[in-house]
Amino acid sequence: MLLLFCVLFGYIYIYIFRIRKKLQFLLVYYSSGGLLAYADSNTNGAKSISVQCQNETQKKKVVVLGTGWASTSFLKDLDISSYDVQVVSPRNYFAFTPLLPSVTCGTVEARSIVEPVRNIIKKRNGEIKFWEAECLKIDPENKKVLCRSNIDENLAGSNEFCLDFDYLVIAIGAQVNTFDTPGVLEHCLFLKEVEDAQRIRRTVIDCFEKAVLPELTEEERKTNLHFVIVGGGPTGVEFAAELHDFIHEDLVKIYPSVKDLVSITLIQSGDHILNTFDERISSFAEQKFQRDGIEVLTGHRVMSVSQRMINMKTRSKGEDISIPHGMVVWSTGVGTRPVVKDFMEQIGQGNRRVLATDEWLKVKGLDDIYALGDCATVDQKKIMASSFNSFMFTSILILQEDISAIFKAADKDNSGTLTIEEFIDVVEDVVIRYPQVELHLKSKHLFEVTDLLKDVDGSDREEIDIEGFKLALSHVDKQTKSLPATAQVAVQQGAYLSMCFNKREKCKSEPEGPRKFRSGGRHEFRPFRYRHLGQFAPLGGEQAAAELPGDWVSMGRSTQWLWYSIYASKQVSWRTRFLVIGDWGRRFIFGRDSSRI
Amino acid sequence: MLLLFCVLFGYIYIYIFRIRKKLQFLLVYYSSGGLLAYADSNTNGAKSISVQCQNETQKKKVVVLGTGWASTSFLKDLDISSYDVQVVSPRNYFAFTPLLPSVTCGTVEARSIVEPVRNIIKKRNGEIKFWEAECLKIDPENKKVLCRSNIDENLAGSNEFCLDFDYLVIAIGAQVNTFDTPGVLEHCLFLKEVEDAQRIRRTVIDCFEKAVLPELTEEERKTNLHFVIVGGGPTGVEFAAELHDFIHEDLVKIYPSVKDLVSITLIQSGDHILNTFDERISSFAEQKFQRDGIEVLTGHRVMSVSQRMINMKTRSKGEDISIPHGMVVWSTGVGTRPVVKDFMEQIGQGNRRVLATDEWLKVKGLDDIYALGDCATVDQKKIMASSFNSFMFTSILILQEDISAIFKAADKDNSGTLTIEEFIDVVEDVVIRYPQVELHLKSKHLFEVTDLLKDVDGSDREEIDIEGFKLALSHVDKQTKSLPATAQVAVQQGAYLSMCFNKREKCKSEPEGPRKFRSGGRHEFRPFRYRHLGQFAPLGGEQAAAELPGDWVSMGRSTQWLWYSIYASKQVSWRTRFLVIGDWGRRFIFGRDSSRI
Repeated sequence: MLLLFCVLFGYIYIYIFRIRKKLQFLLVYYSSGGLLAYADSNTNGAKSISVQCQNETQKKKVVVLGTGWASTSFLKDLDISSYDVQVVSPRNYFAFTPLLPSVTCGTVEARSIVEPVRNIIKKRNGEIKFWEAECLKIDPENKKVLCRSNIDENLAGSNEFCLDFDYLVIAIGAQVNTFDTPGVLEHCLFLKEVEDAQRIRRTVIDCFEKAVLPELTEEERKTNLHFVIVGGGPTGVEFAAELHDFIHEDLVKIYPSVKDLVSITLIQSGDHILNTFDERISSFAEQKFQRDGIEVLTGHRVMSVSQRMINMKTRSKGEDISIPHGMVVWSTGVGTRPVVKDFMEQIGQGNRRVLATDEWLKVKGLDDIYALGDCATVDQKKIMASSFNSFMFTSILILQEDISAIFKAADKDNSGTLTIEEFIDVVEDVVIRYPQVELHLKSKHLFEVTDLLKDVDGSDREEIDIEGFKLALSHVDKQTKSLPATAQVAVQQGAYLSMCFNKREKCKSEPEGPRKFRSGGRHEFRPFRYRHLGQFAPLGGEQAAAELPGDWVSMGRSTQWLWYSIYASKQVSWRTRFLVIGDWGRRFIFGRDSSRI
Repeated sequence: MLLLFCVLFGYIYIYIFRIRKKLQFLLVYYSSGGLLAYADSNTNGAKSISVQCQNETQKKKVVVLGTGWASTSFLKDLDISSYDVQVVSPRNYFAFTPLLPSVTCGTVEARSIVEPVRNIIKKRNGEIKFWEAECLKIDPENKKVLCRSNIDENLAGSNEFCLDFDYLVIAIGAQVNTFDTPGVLEHCLFLKEVEDAQRIRRTVIDCFEKAVLPELTEEERKTNLHFVIVGGGPTGVEFAAELHDFIHEDLVKIYPSVKDLVSITLIQSGDHILNTFDERISSFAEQKFQRDGIEVLTGHRVMSVSQRMINMKTRSKGEDISIPHGMVVWSTGVGTRPVVKDFMEQIGQGNRRVLATDEWLKVKGLDDIYALGDCATVDQKKIMASSFNSFMFTSILILQEDISAIFKAADKDNSGTLTIEEFIDVVEDVVIRYPQVELHLKSKHLFEVTDLLKDVDGSDREEIDIEGFKLALSHVDKQTKSLPATAQVAVQQGAYLSMCFNKREKCKSEPEGPRKFRSGGRHEFRPFRYRHLGQFAPLGGEQAAAELPGDWVSMGRSTQWLWYSIYASKQVSWRTRFLVIGDWGRRFIFGRDSSRI
């Protein structure tokens, strides 16, 4: 046995040692998408340093807050030859958050889904600086951010510092939204950070260890083994499924005495779980959960949570219901972080729920501050309503409607009516500037924008006046939707913003955005446009549901395989990819670990 | 890329799914060392339950405290058909403690070295019960232990419970020994539990993250990056080596700005580090550390530790030295846990440092309570000194010496002198009962016990009187040594005790132990005898030193390979074995992770 290991290990050791260098090289190659000019940077070392110093004085300072999806996606493609970049975040790692529900039950280990930020930015030749600290205050007037490290005070040196910026990118994500429900912060667990997932894992084990102790009544054991999930969105549903699998595949085997006392309840205020998904997926999930014995309480609103009870009201009859619980996981919506709230008050957005940006991801009313990911929302300009402009404690109501400006700009001969030709001349810019127009056409099954100008009978018109124009576009704004708080949106926003940053100089002279109808000229960049690539909902028992591009819906075992493949390929590094796949394999063979660490 | 993953994963999935059952079967086979009679237990289910119930009333209750090396080794081989076993421990897992230093730096993950206790006892057909709780009080008079679960009070049911026992096995290990040095508990990290190792890992990253923050002076950065280890034993030395590797192989690459400010200091009160090892190993380690830039301060005694400073005194000149630190890891000796301290006071061992047992691992003066592993020490009976017997608050000093009793028992003809024949008749029992005799012979390079009876000139004697006999054995007791607090001792003790438990009934009628010289008759069992199998000291940089059986000493790279093989083969389950080997492989390819989680 020993000898076998000795020999085996010796071989593996030698082999790995030999191919290590080669592998590292390959990994760098793959990760960065091409060969890095290593030799180059070495031979011209002295020269490049002097060039760098010269550049640095001219470089604009970019401060990025956060190390989540939006921020890493922004940093990945940013051309650092023209910017001096500093990143601030209390987490020195990037976490692959879609796998958090898997971490709660040990299907995947916490370390397998995180990648140190310094590893990510190291690939950019060390020119990006990272500080592990929390941003306490954003000062848009003086262009400064105040930061404080969360590290224990017992290390030498001050924990606070200030950073100047020319451009600020706010991508600090969101915090949990309790909707001010009493007792939630004190008695519920959440699923936003890696630590949350680890805490849930420990608590599940605690509930079982407590339930099997001697001298407990059957009722007490049942209470401790009642797991409640509040929120029927993708995260809540995936967690419920993972928990069910963990309990029924692993825990009942080692806690056989209490296996019949376990129950899982999923509470959803709406009529269906997964209500952002296609109806077929939603009902497939509900049926699967029913078969699995997961109780789904739709139309129930949680009123308060106490140490041992969760209190609800049914939406239909207004009845009050209280059920005892061992653990409650709260997974409903996103809330604004205090530093963003404070910033919003400073810039006159205090009465809004979420920080608003324009379609170029610029914070409304500010010039050099951008916000992306879960901490902000793109406030899509309406074509009909009067626009509202706010800047630094002052707000000016501009009464002029966008549609009038468009009409005026299009009506070149000032005839008071638009011909089809005149309309076609502006239509591309209109579609780029107001994406709701395209969505409206799609919803009405129209193929050409000019179809909008047809009269009520559907016949073509030669000309249209301002009232007719308004009537034609009157329902367009209904199609403005705020983007979901998902990794997909954040990644696309990050990539979009880095592209804007990279061609900032070029686009100053050669603007590529749509026409400014009111002030004339063109926007520098095309506005951000979100492209939905579909979404997954793993439902446990090796089954998943997915909405795929082109309105495809896929459900069952094969979808779970697709999920495995996509999630493996989307990993941020080869290291995490190997680890995650290794974890899946380990789970298949050995099951999930139930040690309370 | 995606397709590749899809296909690859599909294949792996199917393959694993097919061989899963087979694998699980094989693992059970390997782990338990043979096939379990699964089919048997199923077909005769009803019958076996009734038999079981009948048995249970007759079964003696054994309570085992602890889930460390001693306890799991005891449980592994215990014949549970004759005992009703309950295990109590605040940790629901067994930890492979020799790999803790590797966990501190992420060479191996914490989860890879732990195995749930329930997995270990599951293999015993679920007849062993486990409670995750801490033992608060041992009541030897009423044969009860009071336990309390450490789980948060917010779960339903009482956390306290009482267990009755017929036999109690105390194997709860030791806690850290601060030698009452001020500030150690508050400002130092330890290396006894898995959580300690995880805390060290986070702290090392904290020190680096803090040191690179802006607005710190060079002095402050240096202070934060000064890592101090107190204690030059195997654990302290291995940790220093691991830390050095972690810093120089991984951290300096991602914190390049501070790489020249890092320092590691190892403080040892004795003259050499690794002073329980062979001198060659000790000096090899010192030389290696010197080359690596690890400062070794021998002959320094730590007087106190404060938030930023560690204060020492040199042993030679009595000078006071204070050095600033970023982190101190305290790794010196073992101390007694409060519950054991309290128990010792109850049984009149209050003035002792460690709980004392006899050579049969029975707590001195008690009949049915055993103690093994780090929480106890075997008080080797001396052949010359007067024996001291204590029982429940009363102590009786027996003035008669063992050697006189031996002489009396051997002198069958009551002639007042022993002939060689008479001596040979008792010698086997003497050697078994007093292992120091054999050690003495070895140290004097004597081959036969009868050589002891030779006169001062080395000539054989026909007869020997009581004074001559005492003179011959006068130096024997110098060879009694207390056993080291290692996993090896604990495992051997656990295995020994389970063997005693298994043949308790048989040995009552057919005692197999040595002769009782004073009271006549025989001891039921042979006393516990420790067999030293050697020890390792990994020194970093793929080098290790080892003392092997037969006084062999091995140092260098090949020893590290041997270390890998032995540590892999010694893993408690196939799961941890695969995980640990996987972790080593991952470290070779990708390095260690520096995410602060």
